[in-house]
Amino acid sequence: MTSDRTTVRRLAEKSVDDPAARNAILDASRLAHVSVIDDGTPFVLPVAYGRDGDQVLFHGSTASRLFRSLAEGAPTCFTVTLLDGLLVARSAFESSMHYRSVMVLGSCAAIDGDAKVEALRTITEHLMPGRWDDVRSPLAKELAATLVLALPLTEWSAKVGNSPPDDNPIDLDTAVWAGSVPILTTFGPLTDAPDLRMPVEPPAYLKTWIP
Amino acid sequence: MTSDRTTVRRLAEKSVDDPAARNAILDASRLAHVSVIDDGTPFVLPVAYGRDGDQVLFHGSTASRLFRSLAEGAPTCFTVTLLDGLLVARSAFESSMHYRSVMVLGSCAAIDGDAKVEALRTITEHLMPGRWDDVRSPLAKELAATLVLALPLTEWSAKVGNSPPDDNPIDLDTAVWAGSVPILTTFGPLTDAPDLRMPVEPPAYLKTWIP
Repeated sequence: MTSDRTTVRRLAEKSVDDPAARNAILDASRLAHVSVIDDGTPFVLPVAYGRDGDQVLFHGSTASRLFRSLAEGAPTCFTVTLLDGLLVARSAFESSMHYRSVMVLGSCAAIDGDAKVEALRTITEHLMPGRWDDVRSPLAKELAATLVLALPLTEWSAKVGNSPPDDNPIDLDTAVWAGSVPILTTFGPLTDAPDLRMPVEPPAYLKTWIP
Repeated sequence: MTSDRTTVRRLAEKSVDDPAARNAILDASRLAHVSVIDDGTPFVLPVAYGRDGDQVLFHGSTASRLFRSLAEGAPTCFTVTLLDGLLVARSAFESSMHYRSVMVLGSCAAIDGDAKVEALRTITEHLMPGRWDDVRSPLAKELAATLVLALPLTEWSAKVGNSPPDDNPIDLDTAVWAGSVPILTTFGPLTDAPDLRMPVEPPAYLKTWIP
């Protein structure tokens, strides 16, 4: 749902209002940037995350003052941006990117108890689908060292830029190429951990991680 | 240069102090997330950018209240994060990412006059090396619609995570694969703008954009 402060005003034609389209963007990225104000400075931190229905989940260290502030409900902004390509126009002014982005405003709540392990499962499965059943369950001391935060998807905006160049008519008769160049993300060859003590094959689910 | 508020405390062994290493990270990405406080909320905006020596440069619309606030010197944080891979450990707690990140704190200054066009050239050449000579020079009305901001690289931190999994000794005798999976960025096939009015070949410098 948009509010006055999440209404897309710049390039409003790129705004996306459908929660399913928003979720598709959130589900396609592994990285968000989350903010928190500390002593007047708006820090921006990269975080891994997951999505559980209408909330995003991420975690940090209990030793981090910034994460503790988020756990106490400090106002935050959670932004996910996927760069899909370069938009190569005939002027610098019209040159741009193809992208998909989501911005969420609000306040986080800390998750505790059984829900905390379930939230860690959601984050792990978002990053590494299929992995949760192979990793050892969290230890009490690991859970104690980890803050797990939930941010509701109630106040948000999303934008998708995927159009061809929108050049000024004065530029169309010049003999300059214009178009777009897709940016693709893929995975390289696996590297075994140096401390593998027995011959173990990489699991089949790794193959599903390629977007 | 680090300050008390940019000293890396979490995973301090991943901290990078060399300005050349910092610049290599900044030069390898096309996307930053920049923050600005508006009415108590720390907004996080994705921006394209460039680097000119010891400052980063980015632009926004003069119609954006948030960018006007940055131009007036509001405190900001400028964060660049490159995801280089998935770190697949034997516990969720040790599972992580390979990444390179830079965080810059400070206040921006607006760039005007001849330096403004030069800054736009720097940003364009960062995103699309070789392109500036092919695009039409900025019009006065385009320059009037654009805020170009410079943020000095005086207070910053950088981190690089590229180690193998650091698993708990209790997990090393389990028959579970562990290791890392590199995330690679590449470019897909070009798409011509639909309004190309004459046969024009894509320029040779496009081939250099592949990382």
